[in-house]
Amino acid sequence: MGRSSFLKKERQSILMDKLKEDPFLTDEELAEIFSVSIPTIRLDRLELGIPELRERIKNVAEKNHEKVKSLNSKEIVGELVDLTLNQRGISILETDNSMVFEKTKIVRGHFIYSLAESLAIAVIDAQVALVGVANIKYKVPVHSGAKLVARAEVKRKRENNFIVWVNILEKQTEVFRGKFILVSISDKSSNN
Amino acid sequence: MGRSSFLKKERQSILMDKLKEDPFLTDEELAEIFSVSIPTIRLDRLELGIPELRERIKNVAEKNHEKVKSLNSKEIVGELVDLTLNQRGISILETDNSMVFEKTKIVRGHFIYSLAESLAIAVIDAQVALVGVANIKYKVPVHSGAKLVARAEVKRKRENNFIVWVNILEKQTEVFRGKFILVSISDKSSNN
Repeated sequence: MGRSSFLKKERQSILMDKLKEDPFLTDEELAEIFSVSIPTIRLDRLELGIPELRERIKNVAEKNHEKVKSLNSKEIVGELVDLTLNQRGISILETDNSMVFEKTKIVRGHFIYSLAESLAIAVIDAQVALVGVANIKYKVPVHSGAKLVARAEVKRKRENNFIVWVNILEKQTEVFRGKFILVSISDKSSNN
Repeated sequence: MGRSSFLKKERQSILMDKLKEDPFLTDEELAEIFSVSIPTIRLDRLELGIPELRERIKNVAEKNHEKVKSLNSKEIVGELVDLTLNQRGISILETDNSMVFEKTKIVRGHFIYSLAESLAIAVIDAQVALVGVANIKYKVPVHSGAKLVARAEVKRKRENNFIVWVNILEKQTEVFRGKFILVSISDKSSNN
């Protein structure tokens, strides 16, 4: 009892640090890190007042969705958990059965594409941004239930032209990568 | 009266021919061809027992949707009005306000992408076909209400690899083109 409660305090302290580094660790991943059961992690979170992952993502995403200029909040596919306009962004999508081919339970390409396209548009610091060209590659089939993490990086900005790279990971595996060329249209009375 | 009823018979006969050539002419387009009003065309169709365009598309599409192996009928985006497996296909999508960016009323890229991807998969003669690579170009912004006609052509088939080109027209203008590389997976007990 003495030892286990020492371990528990230590674990909870490390758990706080871990979640500060990466706020989107799942209970499953945390359980693996500490070699404890998932219910133990849940209890830890409860005691520490840390909400469940979905709630943590929503909280962070809300603030980022407000930063986006080129899309309305409800037009964003996925939850934006990080965003620096004209530089980079990260969004998360939890896939489910509504997104899969019935026969294979593989997530349909256009849901993955929508996540990537939506993020590529969201990072642009302009009222309107349209995709001109996209070169995309689906590397590994994604199954229902997978949590996809999309990262976008603005690679080049020249006047109103942007090149944005997006890659999407499931756990540590890259499942998709794409290069998007976008054109921004400024708010009003620009030179057109 | 005599002259106008002669004209009407003549018009209705040509109208039948025109719709045999291109069953997807709109009432508006027909009205332009004959320099008459749209209600006149509607009356002609009524007298000739020709259903409205949407109905004509649905009737044709139903038969084509049955031919598709790689997708379930409800998974197809757009109405397939022509399909020859492993060769070519045509599908039609009527865009609406649910598909647009709120700010600009421009149809969101991923709806156009979905039409193209869905058609590229549908033309493949296999139980399962997945997109590996897509290189796509949005050429002209599409507005709500536009009727999009997507054409796919299987350009190359090598074992279980397919290259499919899709282009999408609105009226006579190309608004999108894409090259898709797909991989088919055969039904069962193949060599994997």
